[in-house]
Amino acid sequence: MKTAIVLALLATGICWAQPPADCKPSSLNIPGAPYPCVFPDHHAMFRVAAPNAQAVKVRVGAGFDMTKEADGLWYATTTPLVEGFHYYMLTIDGASVSDPATQTFFGSGAWSSAIEIPAADADFYSHKDVPHGVVRDQWYFSTVTQQWRRCMIYTPPDYDTNKKVSYPVLYLLHGWGENELGWTFQGHVDQIMDNLIAAGKAKPMIIVMDNLNAVKPGEDGTIYNARGVLTQAVPQPQPPMGAPPAAPPSGPGGQRPAGAAAPARPMFRLSTTFTEMMFTDLIPMVEKSYRVAPARENRAMAGLSMGGMQTFTTGLEHLDKFAYLGGFSGNCGGFGGGAFDAKTTCNGAFADAAAFNKQVKVLFLSTGSVEGPRVRQFSDELTQAGIKNVYFESPGTAHEWLSWRRALADFAPRLFR
Amino acid sequence: MKTAIVLALLATGICWAQPPADCKPSSLNIPGAPYPCVFPDHHAMFRVAAPNAQAVKVRVGAGFDMTKEADGLWYATTTPLVEGFHYYMLTIDGASVSDPATQTFFGSGAWSSAIEIPAADADFYSHKDVPHGVVRDQWYFSTVTQQWRRCMIYTPPDYDTNKKVSYPVLYLLHGWGENELGWTFQGHVDQIMDNLIAAGKAKPMIIVMDNLNAVKPGEDGTIYNARGVLTQAVPQPQPPMGAPPAAPPSGPGGQRPAGAAAPARPMFRLSTTFTEMMFTDLIPMVEKSYRVAPARENRAMAGLSMGGMQTFTTGLEHLDKFAYLGGFSGNCGGFGGGAFDAKTTCNGAFADAAAFNKQVKVLFLSTGSVEGPRVRQFSDELTQAGIKNVYFESPGTAHEWLSWRRALADFAPRLFR
Repeated sequence: MKTAIVLALLATGICWAQPPADCKPSSLNIPGAPYPCVFPDHHAMFRVAAPNAQAVKVRVGAGFDMTKEADGLWYATTTPLVEGFHYYMLTIDGASVSDPATQTFFGSGAWSSAIEIPAADADFYSHKDVPHGVVRDQWYFSTVTQQWRRCMIYTPPDYDTNKKVSYPVLYLLHGWGENELGWTFQGHVDQIMDNLIAAGKAKPMIIVMDNLNAVKPGEDGTIYNARGVLTQAVPQPQPPMGAPPAAPPSGPGGQRPAGAAAPARPMFRLSTTFTEMMFTDLIPMVEKSYRVAPARENRAMAGLSMGGMQTFTTGLEHLDKFAYLGGFSGNCGGFGGGAFDAKTTCNGAFADAAAFNKQVKVLFLSTGSVEGPRVRQFSDELTQAGIKNVYFESPGTAHEWLSWRRALADFAPRLFR
Repeated sequence: MKTAIVLALLATGICWAQPPADCKPSSLNIPGAPYPCVFPDHHAMFRVAAPNAQAVKVRVGAGFDMTKEADGLWYATTTPLVEGFHYYMLTIDGASVSDPATQTFFGSGAWSSAIEIPAADADFYSHKDVPHGVVRDQWYFSTVTQQWRRCMIYTPPDYDTNKKVSYPVLYLLHGWGENELGWTFQGHVDQIMDNLIAAGKAKPMIIVMDNLNAVKPGEDGTIYNARGVLTQAVPQPQPPMGAPPAAPPSGPGGQRPAGAAAPARPMFRLSTTFTEMMFTDLIPMVEKSYRVAPARENRAMAGLSMGGMQTFTTGLEHLDKFAYLGGFSGNCGGFGGGAFDAKTTCNGAFADAAAFNKQVKVLFLSTGSVEGPRVRQFSDELTQAGIKNVYFESPGTAHEWLSWRRALADFAPRLFR
């Protein structure tokens, strides 16, 4: 941007009206932005400048029409929102865009706005006066995908000082439409772990947060998001267990540009390329670059939603590599209906309960209570089949980041014992 | 976001038409997004879905009206753009928003879209097969601002293995309306340094990239950006040398919401609070947490635009702390007109040339050639006053990140020799 433009921006020093006193700016707003704000009862109030627009909507879970008020700005107050982190988008005369008043986060395949409804238990993911680890941007070249990739790596507070100690590693995945930044920016992985470690509740560990998307050169990738943007994966004739059924193109972002063909029923399978990349490139890079304790007893894998599905896809087929598996609102079963059958469910991974229990130190399943009973049912079915597992339910939360922050806080203390 | 919504998004698998074969997607697009794209002659083509909008514009330097084509989407092709990284925004029926097709970057006080026009010399900031350092998210509590702050810290490739080596430190600042992430995401600081170090051109060093904004509790902050968002600083009666003159509220983002009062002429001073915070909190944290070589000979400070101004404000008053100073398109003089007078310019820091030259090992000034001659003139005036300095000019670039990437690549090899 040219100097003249910067100067012009500097010159437009406008002080907007403040929101009602009990409506507190969301912690995800850019510095100084008064809106969106949250009332104590969790109604949220949004505002946007769209001087010539005919219709403006905010889509935060449900859609709320905004109204142009006397000051020329558009406002909406929502119904009460559940606690936690919500992605949201604006629709301005049909255009789906993020709100310039908030930080953006990669979710649903685009950089989306977000609002944080303060949780009663927010302390566990807040900055506190405890020793701090760091998250590192670690780039590496993948021979499988033939691309430079970035993963984020959390190292615990004592990593730089205890120079002779090697640490166990948790490989932790994001969900559909997100990327390797999710656990840091949306998840607060560093605060959660710093606090757990300081309290003596979790062992110091390295956490590797990679990108779920891995496609070889020439490999077809055919899942596009609502904006026509490729987000994930590879087609195959049948969706696996755990893949959600197709839904009609509706809901947020479901509008289709005029002239675009109706989509074929989308299908995806979890990526075997990711698994190959993980074993060929990622794990060797981590074990070469960091002080990592060897062997499967020091290696865990977990993920949220599609990342949980990927964890079970990768992990159940490679139990020689992982002693701990976690699926936060996503795993290898329990979403597709169909009766549980230990011989066939999840490709028969649970057929020999005694062997499985001997090998897997923790099999962890979690969900938000608002997501419904399916993960609990799957956990019960596993238990009935003799498979030891841990079920965690986040009270009052949806298929969203507060469920997954809480899941991590419950899962991490169980690792590497 | 609820499962049902995710499923609905998954179901909308739309394959948009591809751009002309010689229009290559910008490297800053989200994965798979075909637009914006760049032609070999540096025209760029933008597209956005805004089904019910009356008028859509893309503002990338200049503004370009978009046209609704037969497919119902809005398109614009720009005039040729200069090489490098450009922030841009869309205007949709008067609303200033980012383009959902690109990654967003914090610039001009909001998370903005950006497009990269490939530079002929892009190699120097590209990923190459060389040893890699990492950038770390380092949080710390500031006793001065009474807030948790994040800085980004680059550690060189050998930092984790050469455990007995201490490293010199460069404190490197972003510009107005940006934040501590700028040098990593917009600047490619890690690739630039990895490549320089691998080539033996720069000494391995730690680079600390903090946030220029530092306000004490109760301290008034009165610079707002075009969206009414506080971005920086503290008022005072007179702008210092180096502060740009006020410009009328026009240009990108210059529109004022109806009903908002006309802004008073904005003024800012560079933050003495930042300086205080830096010496009280930041430097001690860095020197406690990292293996840092002691003394001023191992400490440099630089910044771009307002970050360059802050560097000179902080550095010239504390030459006991810094042996190297760099101002990339921003420094303590040369922008305000007025004759150069060694006794008064920059508060008289250059009054005793011999003493200054003895103390300051490198005084570095740079600009993009498109920015005009003022930095060169200031450098010439300093030279005439007997002040040794280095002038670097980035050919064909504006007040933008390619100028600053190149400035860093020229500056870093001069440090700690």
